[in-house]
Amino acid sequence: MGNKIKIGICGYGNLGRGVESEITKRPDMTLSAIFTRRKPATALRIKSDAPAVHIDSVLEWKDKIDVMILCGGSANDLPVQGPMLAGHFNTIDSYDTHAKIPDYFKEVDAAAERGGNISVISVGWDPGIFSIMRLYAGSLLPDGTTYTFWGKGVSQGHSDAIRGIQGVEGAIQYTIPENAAIERVRSGGNPKLTEREKHRRACYVAVNKGADTERIEKEIKEMPDYFAGYDTDVHFVSQDELTANHSKLMHGGNVIHMGATGAANKHIIEFSLTLDSNPEFTASVLLT
Amino acid sequence: MGNKIKIGICGYGNLGRGVESEITKRPDMTLSAIFTRRKPATALRIKSDAPAVHIDSVLEWKDKIDVMILCGGSANDLPVQGPMLAGHFNTIDSYDTHAKIPDYFKEVDAAAERGGNISVISVGWDPGIFSIMRLYAGSLLPDGTTYTFWGKGVSQGHSDAIRGIQGVEGAIQYTIPENAAIERVRSGGNPKLTEREKHRRACYVAVNKGADTERIEKEIKEMPDYFAGYDTDVHFVSQDELTANHSKLMHGGNVIHMGATGAANKHIIEFSLTLDSNPEFTASVLLT
Repeated sequence: MGNKIKIGICGYGNLGRGVESEITKRPDMTLSAIFTRRKPATALRIKSDAPAVHIDSVLEWKDKIDVMILCGGSANDLPVQGPMLAGHFNTIDSYDTHAKIPDYFKEVDAAAERGGNISVISVGWDPGIFSIMRLYAGSLLPDGTTYTFWGKGVSQGHSDAIRGIQGVEGAIQYTIPENAAIERVRSGGNPKLTEREKHRRACYVAVNKGADTERIEKEIKEMPDYFAGYDTDVHFVSQDELTANHSKLMHGGNVIHMGATGAANKHIIEFSLTLDSNPEFTASVLLT
Repeated sequence: MGNKIKIGICGYGNLGRGVESEITKRPDMTLSAIFTRRKPATALRIKSDAPAVHIDSVLEWKDKIDVMILCGGSANDLPVQGPMLAGHFNTIDSYDTHAKIPDYFKEVDAAAERGGNISVISVGWDPGIFSIMRLYAGSLLPDGTTYTFWGKGVSQGHSDAIRGIQGVEGAIQYTIPENAAIERVRSGGNPKLTEREKHRRACYVAVNKGADTERIEKEIKEMPDYFAGYDTDVHFVSQDELTANHSKLMHGGNVIHMGATGAANKHIIEFSLTLDSNPEFTASVLLT
């Protein structure tokens, strides 16, 4: 242990497990404990030999953790845990509800200031690395336009939305960037692109026996905010095939900045990520 | 003028002209003067209305310039001008002889410290943006390997080397990345690649009347450090064609970092530049 940075993990889902695994590759860090809302002794099977602790006891660890990595979800966990823990620990999280980041920042910042701690929010790849790349490219070539494409990758939010439909047993949704749109951007001319032109959506859905696939497909394609306005393909598959071929949480994307200098010279700055595992990569970013 | 940053340009070649042009796009900067080793009144045709001043009078401008942008060459100009001007001005340059950067840093740093000025060296895209990307990608995924490819682009050093051969009237050399090597990197497996596997070289050469093209082609292909060890194509063209089709100073490249997390998940972080004009883009970077 000695002078190593003592890490705590709060939340043991995909992201928490990724952080646990990546810490072993950082020689200057050690994992002190994993905190969970579940019953730690029975509900968690922890890979490392770190103790699992119920989150109600987290304050007892105040002097034993240098940095608490918050691995809960942005929808329900972080809005509560972020401000609460920032008052007592240095924290870092990957809060990713873009529209609510200013509010979340205010709450976490106030708590961290009261506690005399440092909190870093919204670390990951988007928001995170992609945000930095948009700013960096725009600074290097101010006379330009920036485009972001996501995918091919699994959207947890869209997959969850499909799983909420009656008769659906399991589902995975891939966000797929339209290559034609990417090529239009790369070839210049600063095209105006609609959401439908930029991305399409492919859904792999397993249904309960006897379920009405026609109704399910219609409900998916017409779902406001999630699928309406996009070209969406729905493929019905067995739960076995879903498990066998669609369980990798792959993701990625491109930030493309087109800029001009001089009379007529164009330049492309492009940054891309191709990720086999979104949570493991995000874990690696959180530790950096 | 008012509170704008007062810029001086030292050296009026391709890069100096690029900086002059890009300053007009930066509302917080103003160009105060252009300094040159040539006779300013007769040898320079300056596009903007900034005065052209002989470099011998540069010290008279000590209080009239906030930042001096050094646009001379790395081979002969910057090793002299860098340390000399850093003693009297805040400077920024794009010194790019990678192997000699530590020595150059020492000399410029000592001069800047004596003069109480700030100097930033080796700003551009490689060294520069690419250096940052290699560091950034390696930090985000420490368990990984980074590759850099350059091109397709014009190498001034290689073009100059061909122009030095007897009988050559004009020449342009393109460094071309081997797509097969890039695809091998992207598909994983951390290949070990030789220089010959990573890049090839294409030369467009105009010769004087009656010159021995067979000898010239042989001299190019066997030139140590520059062409020996690479697959090199030599195309003989007229000087008119060289001017018409090969006068754009295009360049670019890719930094590709392959990293792993967990048991078997691979990730690709890739950054690329595609530049119509290397000097104009470098100018934009220098001003950022």
